[in-house]
Amino acid sequence: MPLEIIPARAGTSVRLARGETLRVVDPQGGQVCDLVAYAWGDVTEWLSNGRSFDYGGKLYFSAGDILYSNRSRPMLTIVADDVGCHDFLYTACSAEMFRLQYGATGDHPNCLDNLSRALAHHGVAPHLVPTPFNIFMNSTMRSDGRLVIAPPRSRAGDAIQLRAEIDLAIALSACSALLANGGSAKPIAYEILEA
Amino acid sequence: MPLEIIPARAGTSVRLARGETLRVVDPQGGQVCDLVAYAWGDVTEWLSNGRSFDYGGKLYFSAGDILYSNRSRPMLTIVADDVGCHDFLYTACSAEMFRLQYGATGDHPNCLDNLSRALAHHGVAPHLVPTPFNIFMNSTMRSDGRLVIAPPRSRAGDAIQLRAEIDLAIALSACSALLANGGSAKPIAYEILEA
Repeated sequence: MPLEIIPARAGTSVRLARGETLRVVDPQGGQVCDLVAYAWGDVTEWLSNGRSFDYGGKLYFSAGDILYSNRSRPMLTIVADDVGCHDFLYTACSAEMFRLQYGATGDHPNCLDNLSRALAHHGVAPHLVPTPFNIFMNSTMRSDGRLVIAPPRSRAGDAIQLRAEIDLAIALSACSALLANGGSAKPIAYEILEA
Repeated sequence: MPLEIIPARAGTSVRLARGETLRVVDPQGGQVCDLVAYAWGDVTEWLSNGRSFDYGGKLYFSAGDILYSNRSRPMLTIVADDVGCHDFLYTACSAEMFRLQYGATGDHPNCLDNLSRALAHHGVAPHLVPTPFNIFMNSTMRSDGRLVIAPPRSRAGDAIQLRAEIDLAIALSACSALLANGGSAKPIAYEILEA
């Protein structure tokens, strides 16, 4: 499969069969890609940050780490990672968030709508979207306990590879929140590598 | 309303009207109480740790802090807190978790079942239970990024008070996971204070 492009502020979905690897690329550098995953054919089993925190014993994940479902099954293993800086704490940006934090009026492109629309044919409504694995998002906790969002550390061409441990329905969204993306919304690229 | 007791390893649900305050008490000290909340009459709006992290700019919450829904509405305000040490990162303990982490065979009392059963009449299935606000749970992130669970800091009679900002369906569970509860599962008490 050739490299596919997700335009800035847009989303898409893919089927990732067990053993296949999803490679997500930051074409220009400094861009976040939200990722959610569900068991193929059963959206009641979803990628869970909380289970992953518990079994991993940490908040931040990179190569060699396993991401778990709400039913405690391994869903994705990070098999390669050029950046080593991703977030699993922040919810997908939403229309309400853009109103509250950016003063947006009316609708605004956002990851929550992108992710749920990309998987609407699987029955994923917005309230069924869990906290995404926010690839390349640079969140850190300061020593005083405050959370801080900084620009991604990813440079042009940097990538992460995630191998499916079960058959998955995955949605990806090129994030629109300027604060998380170094001031500009940019595209994301991806490809599926065969087992 | 008198103080109600939740027996060790059990759960319950309450209706908390806007303006009412839920007071959760640790009768013996050292016991965690998982709390989840939904908008009354609409379980598609739920208490969201990720939105609360984002709007609060931090991972740990105490008196004066607001806990938000997935739709970015204030749900609960912490109006008093004797302990100041609670967790919002760990998923509810589950039968699968007890098998994986404690070697349990078959079923084991767990917060995920307690919370979902307590709200089953509202349509809450286990996969609709988000990460609870884990009252009195003592999780900390070390400087090397590892998460560590320590015994609760709560002493006998310590309490937290949460005021409802909208009408809520709330479930509470006295946690069974020995690691989080200083080695023994104990009861929890609560009362509802009128507006």
